[in-house]
Amino acid sequence: MTRRAIATVCLSGTLEDKLAAAAAAGFDGIEVFEPDLIGSPWSPAELAARCADAGLTIDLYQPFRDLDSTDPERFARNLRRAERKFDVMTALGTDTMLVCSSVAPDAVADLDRLAEQLAGAADRAAQRGLRLAYEALAWGAEVSTWDAAWEAVRRADHPALGLCLDSFHVLSRGGDPAGFGAVPADKLFFLQLADAPRLEMDVLQWSRHHRLFPGQGAFDLPGFLGAVLAAGYTGPLSLEVFNDVFRQSDPRRAAVDAMRSLLWLEESLAHRSPGAAPGAIPPPPALTGHSFAELAVDGVSGPQLAGALTALGFTHTGQHRSKPVQLWEQGRARVLLNASVVRPEGPGLAAVAALGLESTDPTASALRAEALLAPVLPRTRGAAEAELSAVAAPDGTEVFFTRTGPDGWPADFLDTGAPASPGAGLTAIDHVGLTQPFDSFDEAGLFYRAVLGLEPEGVVEVAAPFGLVRTRAVANPDRTLRLALTASLLRRGGWAPGVPAPQHVAFTTGDVVATARRLRAAGAPLLAVPANYHDDLEARVDLDPGLVAGMRECGLLYDEDAGGSYLHLYTEVLGSRVFFEVVQRIGGYDGYGSVNAPVRMAAHRRLRLATA
Amino acid sequence: MTRRAIATVCLSGTLEDKLAAAAAAGFDGIEVFEPDLIGSPWSPAELAARCADAGLTIDLYQPFRDLDSTDPERFARNLRRAERKFDVMTALGTDTMLVCSSVAPDAVADLDRLAEQLAGAADRAAQRGLRLAYEALAWGAEVSTWDAAWEAVRRADHPALGLCLDSFHVLSRGGDPAGFGAVPADKLFFLQLADAPRLEMDVLQWSRHHRLFPGQGAFDLPGFLGAVLAAGYTGPLSLEVFNDVFRQSDPRRAAVDAMRSLLWLEESLAHRSPGAAPGAIPPPPALTGHSFAELAVDGVSGPQLAGALTALGFTHTGQHRSKPVQLWEQGRARVLLNASVVRPEGPGLAAVAALGLESTDPTASALRAEALLAPVLPRTRGAAEAELSAVAAPDGTEVFFTRTGPDGWPADFLDTGAPASPGAGLTAIDHVGLTQPFDSFDEAGLFYRAVLGLEPEGVVEVAAPFGLVRTRAVANPDRTLRLALTASLLRRGGWAPGVPAPQHVAFTTGDVVATARRLRAAGAPLLAVPANYHDDLEARVDLDPGLVAGMRECGLLYDEDAGGSYLHLYTEVLGSRVFFEVVQRIGGYDGYGSVNAPVRMAAHRRLRLATA
Repeated sequence: MTRRAIATVCLSGTLEDKLAAAAAAGFDGIEVFEPDLIGSPWSPAELAARCADAGLTIDLYQPFRDLDSTDPERFARNLRRAERKFDVMTALGTDTMLVCSSVAPDAVADLDRLAEQLAGAADRAAQRGLRLAYEALAWGAEVSTWDAAWEAVRRADHPALGLCLDSFHVLSRGGDPAGFGAVPADKLFFLQLADAPRLEMDVLQWSRHHRLFPGQGAFDLPGFLGAVLAAGYTGPLSLEVFNDVFRQSDPRRAAVDAMRSLLWLEESLAHRSPGAAPGAIPPPPALTGHSFAELAVDGVSGPQLAGALTALGFTHTGQHRSKPVQLWEQGRARVLLNASVVRPEGPGLAAVAALGLESTDPTASALRAEALLAPVLPRTRGAAEAELSAVAAPDGTEVFFTRTGPDGWPADFLDTGAPASPGAGLTAIDHVGLTQPFDSFDEAGLFYRAVLGLEPEGVVEVAAPFGLVRTRAVANPDRTLRLALTASLLRRGGWAPGVPAPQHVAFTTGDVVATARRLRAAGAPLLAVPANYHDDLEARVDLDPGLVAGMRECGLLYDEDAGGSYLHLYTEVLGSRVFFEVVQRIGGYDGYGSVNAPVRMAAHRRLRLATA
Repeated sequence: MTRRAIATVCLSGTLEDKLAAAAAAGFDGIEVFEPDLIGSPWSPAELAARCADAGLTIDLYQPFRDLDSTDPERFARNLRRAERKFDVMTALGTDTMLVCSSVAPDAVADLDRLAEQLAGAADRAAQRGLRLAYEALAWGAEVSTWDAAWEAVRRADHPALGLCLDSFHVLSRGGDPAGFGAVPADKLFFLQLADAPRLEMDVLQWSRHHRLFPGQGAFDLPGFLGAVLAAGYTGPLSLEVFNDVFRQSDPRRAAVDAMRSLLWLEESLAHRSPGAAPGAIPPPPALTGHSFAELAVDGVSGPQLAGALTALGFTHTGQHRSKPVQLWEQGRARVLLNASVVRPEGPGLAAVAALGLESTDPTASALRAEALLAPVLPRTRGAAEAELSAVAAPDGTEVFFTRTGPDGWPADFLDTGAPASPGAGLTAIDHVGLTQPFDSFDEAGLFYRAVLGLEPEGVVEVAAPFGLVRTRAVANPDRTLRLALTASLLRRGGWAPGVPAPQHVAFTTGDVVATARRLRAAGAPLLAVPANYHDDLEARVDLDPGLVAGMRECGLLYDEDAGGSYLHLYTEVLGSRVFFEVVQRIGGYDGYGSVNAPVRMAAHRRLRLATA
């Protein structure tokens, strides 16, 4: 039975806040990070009792720094310090102490001497019934790789001395987990798990500020864990994540995010093991596309959105049986305008309230989401209405798992009998763009990856008029379902007027120039693109002059990647919070035109100022 | 006459926002950053007209990237791209283009070939009456130092080709400005100025995210500018600062901060030049200490603070002649409780509203502050009241320049006749701790450095319960005036209850143990320190057992540095926003006990929860 633990340093708040959060998220144990204890009025014995009450074991006391020393007197003092910490551990009822490789100028370089000092400390620990897990910090002065740490432990040859393996320290240095197999299983004392993005920076800063929970970064955590387990490790899977955002975000949410990352990790590992027993979590059914995007509107923003959809070639085809919800359709592009959702943003606003995602098995999708700790939303259901399973994404957006057909959600809508618009060539939803709260950007990426089985794409950062903006997209394998998650990297400038950065729904067309002409003729509220943009585009990229002329005429923007190109246009912001995009993907272009976001944002700001 | 310019990339917003901010702050010119133009609906000619209207010249168009190429076809295409940008520059009415050293895989390594290509481009520029300023990016593929850039320019030997010197690119690579003297003055086409903190990170990321205005970082900008001017440079002093905070903060404030940095830089350079003419800005009179700290209170928080001051041994000695302001004194420690200040924080709150700083020439201090763009505050003055000159610091705190004596501000107060308390041994204000708004942390550091002539100390970061906290102190040379400026590094966790992080006033005592005992006896609201803290302290530091026993008894915290040690205690938070600290400095300790801030914050949170 896998035991799951979390270091208190992963979470914000006081030690009391952290314990409550870890217990509520279902963790079995914690690592006690020393500064959390030092700031707590609970004695170690009282902390032990509180943990027991909360169903948590204390799996590690950490860290003990700079144990070894070339100065005998300082080493003797370090041993006295260790004895004091052994007192604390005895009162805590935990038997394992993390000993980091030294970063001090007096760190011992000679492996035999280091082994001797480690063995001496282990001997004292053993006399107290304790043991030491030695870990190579990636920036250790003399020992900075796991194999050097292992060599010291091997030479020390003391039963109370073993290894702590930390995925960050190993993988950040390019260490090879395949080597773990050479370590006897009884020397693998502890395992700490952390993911991280690939960053070009000092490894200490990278480690202290940018670690992530497994599945949120770029490291191969399933491979790492597989190697550790294959080497015979049987202790807890314990998270140790230093992250500036998690340090200040709600610990109750962060703990759930952390638990989800371990569930994802265990499942990912199981998938790699042929013949593994099926896990407790139902596998993700395939998601095949967007069935609808639902916008919350009110009496002011509703007519504004309806007018825009009409100009975009949509037809108001359905009216919900029991709620003030309109269905608008064009091809397979469907938008719901829902006037029954109470949104906190204020009067006159619109917002993306829900995503309808087409699932091959909606019930199984919902069960999986629940097993992965997604909040399941209650539904009020009228007579003759289809059951819809919905969960809440980290930003509060409702995610519906749907089957679009006569027996599915469309049955909830009565035909309006409205004559079908000839349309403007829009065929489907290409993607939905959701602005994430700052605190939940990485949580959201893992949510969509783990809960929905979508693939995360690379992170893109752009310098936008109100600060840096980060985008990470998630998509299904055949790219019929895409979500673009964005967040302000620091914060959005509060000096500029406006509610949080807008959300958007992007529609696909096979001929964006033709579509744009029809939209203009219909009076759609298209966003003007500066001539300077096209002048620069012509200077940068060799494009067909006719195409550029069409782009100038229609206000189209351009991007390209290795796979193809992207032509797109935006509307103005509607209901203060939502805009639409129309996109044509040519070839295998796989991005979202993020490079053009600053041009859009500047244009949106000008319109806001002009109408303020 | 010095001309001062700023690159539009330094400021947040659209190009319109940036122009307005630069003009309002008194800049003479701008560098047009290409993406700002591309996102603007103004044609280049219209932008030129707008700049002329605003009294701004366009001093540089920037940047042109990756000009040279080992691929002749690509080089030819780059020249065509350059021609299009020459069109833009002609319409803008600017004659200088910034050409960065290439970062592309096809960058030319051979200096003669590079010189040939640069000369070819310069020839085309010259035909249009334009010129190219070549700059080594610190991460350029083949040219990454200013001397390599100069060697290429020297070999090209074209009158329309010169150097752009950028302090960041030169100083981040450890370049030596002394070498500029070897460059003919007519080859120094442009100068870009940026400061930066010393960071161990990838130089590109350092440059793109962490530049600062001169005087805010660790580089020797006066030395750099002096070398450039000594080499004969006569162009504008132009700021080019890429900074994540400034990218999203109010551009009007950032532009004033930027202008102040140039005024400081010019003055600092003048000070190094023996026999230089006196500048337009009066030199800073010496500030000799804190005359008072003024707290804004109301009917709820006022009595709470008054009670606490009484227990701390203060006496209510004076009452203001015309305002509801009380003077409380103990030795030279003075606190004003002002019930007439309307604070936006809400009812029941207290806040540090003003600092009284003792000046050898208050009028000159105020004139200097005004010359350095500090907002001068209006004063209502009653009969027989002293004139007080005050300016607003970036966080809104009022800064009074005072002379404490019968003819100074104390004359505004009528003696209450209250019997003097025997006191608790407090003798003066040691420092005032001010929590800064996130956007103005670096602005505040420069404000106190430039306007008040205080010395900035190093930045300290601590991992606190609600996120990382950064502290930077400023002090006068003899350390009788200290301010500790703190800010949440990302943001303070919004999940935890509470108003913005509290401010504090720290008082000096010569014997903190004796003082603490008197405070306890008087019922002062002292903050309890966990026993775990002292257990760890004993394990870490060899201290006299009697001292540690006293620390445990009195709730004292401890820190030490190379110069000495620091014993201190905190009170509870009063009026939801303010606490007091009592400190004893032993030897030459020069810090603020920041390492203990997490213990204090955790204790404050527990009290808040207990009373919520």
